[in-house]
Amino acid sequence: MLAVGKELLIGRTVNTNAYWIGKRLALLGSILQRVVTVDDDLEEIASALRECLARSPDFIIVVGGLGPTPDDMTLRGVAEGMGRGIQPSAEALEMMRGHYAKRGMRGVTMTRARRKMALLPEGSDPVRNEFGTAPGVRMIEGRTVIYCLPGVPREMRGIFRRSVEPEIRRRIGRLYRKAVTLKVEGMLESVMAPLIGRELRRYRGAYIKSHPRGVKEGVSRLELDVAAVSKRRSEADGIVAGVVREMTAAIRAAGATVVPEPGARRD
Amino acid sequence: MLAVGKELLIGRTVNTNAYWIGKRLALLGSILQRVVTVDDDLEEIASALRECLARSPDFIIVVGGLGPTPDDMTLRGVAEGMGRGIQPSAEALEMMRGHYAKRGMRGVTMTRARRKMALLPEGSDPVRNEFGTAPGVRMIEGRTVIYCLPGVPREMRGIFRRSVEPEIRRRIGRLYRKAVTLKVEGMLESVMAPLIGRELRRYRGAYIKSHPRGVKEGVSRLELDVAAVSKRRSEADGIVAGVVREMTAAIRAAGATVVPEPGARRD
Repeated sequence: MLAVGKELLIGRTVNTNAYWIGKRLALLGSILQRVVTVDDDLEEIASALRECLARSPDFIIVVGGLGPTPDDMTLRGVAEGMGRGIQPSAEALEMMRGHYAKRGMRGVTMTRARRKMALLPEGSDPVRNEFGTAPGVRMIEGRTVIYCLPGVPREMRGIFRRSVEPEIRRRIGRLYRKAVTLKVEGMLESVMAPLIGRELRRYRGAYIKSHPRGVKEGVSRLELDVAAVSKRRSEADGIVAGVVREMTAAIRAAGATVVPEPGARRD
Repeated sequence: MLAVGKELLIGRTVNTNAYWIGKRLALLGSILQRVVTVDDDLEEIASALRECLARSPDFIIVVGGLGPTPDDMTLRGVAEGMGRGIQPSAEALEMMRGHYAKRGMRGVTMTRARRKMALLPEGSDPVRNEFGTAPGVRMIEGRTVIYCLPGVPREMRGIFRRSVEPEIRRRIGRLYRKAVTLKVEGMLESVMAPLIGRELRRYRGAYIKSHPRGVKEGVSRLELDVAAVSKRRSEADGIVAGVVREMTAAIRAAGATVVPEPGARRD
């Protein structure tokens, strides 16, 4: 994911779009490999895109900077990063006219600022935005599918669900993810560490990670995430159940407590 | 900033550390240029660090992955990214012993998991962590100062305030930032766009950005951020006041409303 917008770099906006996309991908059994956040700056966008492309991911999701204002320059930056030009898209303009008409603005003047939203990288296609004016954009570079989505969460989510997710599903196939969180009291992370190490050696492909949650009334608290991804539901379930059973026993044997809500978080 | 941790990539944790650091840097008049978030993976950490170093920033702040568990591998990844080894630091071990003692665990056994937190990249120094066990780490590579901080927000903030901020202040000097947000009703962003363009041409160095805030009872709402950074307080204040005055007049002339709380947000 390439997130574009100064508001993300000056403590104006929390990058909840990255959180949301990461969660959706995890539910699909896919992985958000990296998030790069850059300023509204042509060279920053272009260079970050080139770095992303160099890793040859299946998908690059670019979010933010598709609007009409001067700082909205994502499509130009993305085009530059691929060494392509930008050109007006009649299809994008048509989508925008449809959006304005839906909002009761039939026959609105296509000013320069508005036409900017329909200037797409060469060889790309607009993607319908049901909740806003600026269309999304889809293109292919090498083995990578690139989507550019608006930064407004409602618009981003709409296009992601409707267009991006189905394509990801087709490409990666159906995967199943099982995840559980244990709450542990009375154990330091440094004591937990070798227990996790042992389980990771036993269950290859398991994801086990502890998160310190501070000290309350002198008692250390941790959360322990256990997850597995597999094409077979039974396999993912089995790995997680095995890790939870063995970790729970080991934690209790060490004199600490597993607060009994192992099913609290299920993805 | 290089943020390390799978929890940031699977929709488990929102990257509020990036938000917080961006805000603190903006208050100092400095700029968070880029945020890169990667998985707990040696090669990912190393390659991301190399990409950051290639841009020769003043500082790289690496956050997360300093703890005792198997997935905590930031210091090894950073060392690898710089082509350095890692070695035990007696000073880091001393800091950790002090922390355990403070928590009533005098003479605690330095297990393998604990000693891992004192394995630092060659040529680096530990930085005191007042709120947790794992020390921060500081090193220099070329013209860049690299800090590695724990991912637990309280620990990260403590070290940032006490050690990182003073060094940033010394390096960049004292800058002043003025920021104001206007609330605008009844104007589409595509109508706002040319007004912003005009002001940006008039006030070089001003930051002006609109954020769509949806439609309420048929009325489009926007927020308009105006900011300026300068060594002289009077200059930053003057730029922001000028932009606010002229944008307010232009917005009203276009038939839209500026909700009168222009002093609402002051940084």
